[in-house]
Amino acid sequence: MALFLGIDGGGTGCRAVVAGATGPVLGRGTGGPANITSDPVAARASILAAAMQAVAAAGGADLGRIHAGLGLAGANAAGHDALDLPFARARIVTDAQTAVMGALGAGDGIVAAIGTGSVFAAQRGGVFRQIGGKGLVLGDEGSGAWLGRRLLAQVLRAADGFLAATPLVQAVLAEMGGEAGVISFAARATPADFAALAPRIIESGDPLAQTLLADGAREVAAALDLLDHDQTRQVVFLGGLGGIYAGLLAPEWQAVDPQGTALDGALMLARGLG
Amino acid sequence: MALFLGIDGGGTGCRAVVAGATGPVLGRGTGGPANITSDPVAARASILAAAMQAVAAAGGADLGRIHAGLGLAGANAAGHDALDLPFARARIVTDAQTAVMGALGAGDGIVAAIGTGSVFAAQRGGVFRQIGGKGLVLGDEGSGAWLGRRLLAQVLRAADGFLAATPLVQAVLAEMGGEAGVISFAARATPADFAALAPRIIESGDPLAQTLLADGAREVAAALDLLDHDQTRQVVFLGGLGGIYAGLLAPEWQAVDPQGTALDGALMLARGLG
Repeated sequence: MALFLGIDGGGTGCRAVVAGATGPVLGRGTGGPANITSDPVAARASILAAAMQAVAAAGGADLGRIHAGLGLAGANAAGHDALDLPFARARIVTDAQTAVMGALGAGDGIVAAIGTGSVFAAQRGGVFRQIGGKGLVLGDEGSGAWLGRRLLAQVLRAADGFLAATPLVQAVLAEMGGEAGVISFAARATPADFAALAPRIIESGDPLAQTLLADGAREVAAALDLLDHDQTRQVVFLGGLGGIYAGLLAPEWQAVDPQGTALDGALMLARGLG
Repeated sequence: MALFLGIDGGGTGCRAVVAGATGPVLGRGTGGPANITSDPVAARASILAAAMQAVAAAGGADLGRIHAGLGLAGANAAGHDALDLPFARARIVTDAQTAVMGALGAGDGIVAAIGTGSVFAAQRGGVFRQIGGKGLVLGDEGSGAWLGRRLLAQVLRAADGFLAATPLVQAVLAEMGGEAGVISFAARATPADFAALAPRIIESGDPLAQTLLADGAREVAAALDLLDHDQTRQVVFLGGLGGIYAGLLAPEWQAVDPQGTALDGALMLARGLG
């Protein structure tokens, strides 16, 4: 029986499923981080660990006979050839693309995936289009990391007198050791470190926090506008901040439920190779 | 005879001068990078190397009897105590502050220092006020690094369809290996790497380049407005981009010549300790 492997690989871990050409999942596996831009060697090891675990759980098989669909963080920046995967056939796309495939299934639609990063995609008549997902340095507008970094930048702007020192500004300055502490934190912060500030922004009633969320919502709406050729105004919101933006953008944009997960999308990709 | 040491320490190297309480410079020295946030151990070694060279050139003296004024990159983020300098007395400020002291002497005025980073300062009735200079992650608005990073972000926005793909957008995409190449570059780029794109922006007649420069000029003008309490509209422009912004902001802001260098400012600081 032909086996198909789906891999969903992100910056903090990866998951694998194995199934036949149709029917239910037969085995599952997990592995470590699988961002193929930031650490391709570790990503390869994580992918193989998760794959072997899933294949073993499915009763065992030669990896060289398996078709694999992989949605991997960093796949829009890195070359894929160096991964040198042992599968019969493999197709690598971004983890955003498998999330969209899983969320929309075979149908048309728009997905906004907003967590630590942000990426937006549409599927229309079988054609996939992704925007955003460029990483925090140059993009990831509206994401948790973007919100957190923007909060700190505005805290420093307020300290300089460009804008009002709201209670949130004063609290952040006090907690982080003043301007010098904020600058030091930012110099070493990962996107996840910045994103850790997002819940505080969301839960705050502070005027600066409201401004930041409104800025984020404007960025998200601009991306959705660019994708919504058919004016459906329907969006699958995914990620830790998906629900927040669904609320901020309602009723203009209507949130609809995803059909499946990123792992479902990766398995669809694999089955498409069979 | 009492000796006074001035140190101007930046991210790429540091310079030292030694002089008496009045009169000309008696000795000069140079050393390696002296950013006390990014590498305090190396910064200390660079400072001492430059200091000993300058003292030797001045005829030699015990460092423990010298008063030192130090303008150091990163001094607004790091604690200074760990430097454990061997001088009789030492005062550490940012390299921006010594640049301003040197540029303005004892008088009132405003300085815009814009190179890889950006910092703005005013001296008024002996009171020094600095804004900006927070580093590229959270600030450095209008700087070369800020312009370069913004160019790449806009190139990616154009690739997504948010704005027009001007000739400059197309050229950058082609040279850097498309979107993936731009993202990879940005993930590893230092502020100096981003700033290396600034000359191209300045020399380009491309509409996007003009927009970026106008954005930068707006940021610089906002900072100057915040500092110009007396509505003098006079500014000492320093740094590699100082002349560019002097041109962009004329005639509303009038460029005036600096009185001296950052080393002069550091020596003033040292003499103030005597």
